Amino acid sequence: MSELRKDPISGRWVIIAKSRARRPHDFESTPHIQQQQARFCPFCAGHEDKTPGEIIAYRPAGSAPNHKDWRVRVVPNKFPALEIEGELNKRGEGIYDLMRGVGAHEVIIESPQHVLSTADLTEHQIQEVLWVYRDRLVDLKRDRRLVYGMIFKNVGEAAGASLEHTHSQLIVTPIVPINVWEEMTGSLEFFNYRGRCVYCDMIQQELASEKRIVFDSPGFVAFCPFASRFPFETWILPKPHASHYENIQKNGVEDLAGVLRQVIGRIETALDRPAYNYIIHTGPFDTQELAHYHWHIEIIPRLTKMAGFEWGTGFYINPVPPEEAAAFLREVEARPPQRQNIATREA
Amino acid sequence: MSELRKDPISGRWVIIAKSRARRPHDFESTPHIQQQQARFCPFCAGHEDKTPGEIIAYRPAGSAPNHKDWRVRVVPNKFPALEIEGELNKRGEGIYDLMRGVGAHEVIIESPQHVLSTADLTEHQIQEVLWVYRDRLVDLKRDRRLVYGMIFKNVGEAAGASLEHTHSQLIVTPIVPINVWEEMTGSLEFFNYRGRCVYCDMIQQELASEKRIVFDSPGFVAFCPFASRFPFETWILPKPHASHYENIQKNGVEDLAGVLRQVIGRIETALDRPAYNYIIHTGPFDTQELAHYHWHIEIIPRLTKMAGFEWGTGFYINPVPPEEAAAFLREVEARPPQRQNIATREA
Repeated sequence: MSELRKDPISGRWVIIAKSRARRPHDFESTPHIQQQQARFCPFCAGHEDKTPGEIIAYRPAGSAPNHKDWRVRVVPNKFPALEIEGELNKRGEGIYDLMRGVGAHEVIIESPQHVLSTADLTEHQIQEVLWVYRDRLVDLKRDRRLVYGMIFKNVGEAAGASLEHTHSQLIVTPIVPINVWEEMTGSLEFFNYRGRCVYCDMIQQELASEKRIVFDSPGFVAFCPFASRFPFETWILPKPHASHYENIQKNGVEDLAGVLRQVIGRIETALDRPAYNYIIHTGPFDTQELAHYHWHIEIIPRLTKMAGFEWGTGFYINPVPPEEAAAFLREVEARPPQRQNIATREA
Repeated sequence: MSELRKDPISGRWVIIAKSRARRPHDFESTPHIQQQQARFCPFCAGHEDKTPGEIIAYRPAGSAPNHKDWRVRVVPNKFPALEIEGELNKRGEGIYDLMRGVGAHEVIIESPQHVLSTADLTEHQIQEVLWVYRDRLVDLKRDRRLVYGMIFKNVGEAAGASLEHTHSQLIVTPIVPINVWEEMTGSLEFFNYRGRCVYCDMIQQELASEKRIVFDSPGFVAFCPFASRFPFETWILPKPHASHYENIQKNGVEDLAGVLRQVIGRIETALDRPAYNYIIHTGPFDTQELAHYHWHIEIIPRLTKMAGFEWGTGFYINPVPPEEAAAFLREVEARPPQRQNIATREA
């Protein structure tokens, strides 16, 4: 069982994941993703016994759990940062605060075929991924010990992925993470001062000026934010105000699937399939619809490295103005899907 | 001239460094540091004309500026994130806030020889580096436009270094960075509640428990913090309370040089010369001695990658408990200095 520890100065929490503990020499030989390409893939259809048993899967009526004819499949992470069993046991140790690492850590396998990116999925597959994100949040928020669910995707080694088969993750925490807290309090301050949602204001200003817009659909808008921390950072926001991802409408899922495919496809064309992360920012479990907060997806191509200045200050240096990045992404076409001929990767 | 832009939600500032602007294809072929090893080095003695003219150097009496017989040399960064000329011109653009990128970005070249790490310097050389850090802070804080000076060092490609010759950097900003702000307000809250400095409390508790101590000297203590974000993260703090690095005493410089060499040397032995950053956290320019804040150095070996979860939450997953890291660093010996036979790297 891992441990949650709080930094007494910043209030930031850290997961000390004892189950992942490694000796110093382990860091010298991290296997590279490229070397995995020829390897056996535990996420491919037919290899269901190589992952923990499924939590949920979308499969034909009558098909048995952990049988190979699934379309989207959610399993517990084999090396979980947080685990679902037990009580939090919040306690002190002198000036320090800690608790047990209670929570959830799940893997969403987005395709039975060995494809490598959201851009390789059909729109219908992306829709099912978006639905299963929702289903898992709705299910987990019933657990009163847990307060926040973060859905994210790591693609490529530089983005922290350890398996290349396209997948997302969900980590559910027993405390509100510091960045979410910052977003909540920052947007509330704006709301208290101006009586409007800061994200709604951003959408309005971006649509009016057009210079940072990447893609625009009936229900969603994608733009490179004014204060982009990273080159080609792109946000996707629903146009109508909404604070919680899990309340998305069916029309919204269909619209968003197309937008996500377009935006990631364009980033992959423009930057030649870079490593990237995307993260769904949504309201905490213990809140109802919030007038000051607006859920959204942040996409971060991993092109630059964090150095001492960024670690020390939290100040980012971005060498590409978002206006230039957006102009580029508006011009290019989305990369066409590459479907692998081979359905599974054997050893 | 770069631009400072504020994220309207988090309040975080970003430097949009237009002078570094790059096209998308530039990201595909970033030269690796390894490939630079055989290359010409602009930081080696004799190559003074390959950097901007020096701001200060320690050299024998009578030696001319930009002549080759220096020991430590400070020059403006050739590709500065911030520049010293001009007014801030703070303004709004709809809901957004921005200002001109006024500040300073300097490079501290720590040795005339082509050595690669602090562990390769003599204690006397490290002392001179510590002195020149102080001299630059004392000089720059007289500029009323500027409020914070961050000294940091990037070693190795994974830590964001683009040249291997051992050097540090100083970036001075016209606003207090968000991480510094968090440290200031967090430590002030603790002080208001308990009437003590949180860092002094940490030092006391760490020295009493001993389990996270890496190294202990008369004036300084090095330990792996309780809520370490990264494997083998190590902090060095002065034992007597002090909020501003630039007020360090001469005895302190001599003591700290030995401690820094020991700690980095041990990290380099334990982890086989990993990439690392170190960062000096000190009080803002516009404050006098603060009872609630305590300057310190944070050393971060770069062994793990930030992934979607960390970006989204600010929550870190650390696979090595700090107690294990500290036990390991207590046992090993500091790597002996490697002095290069060749004084300079020619093309």
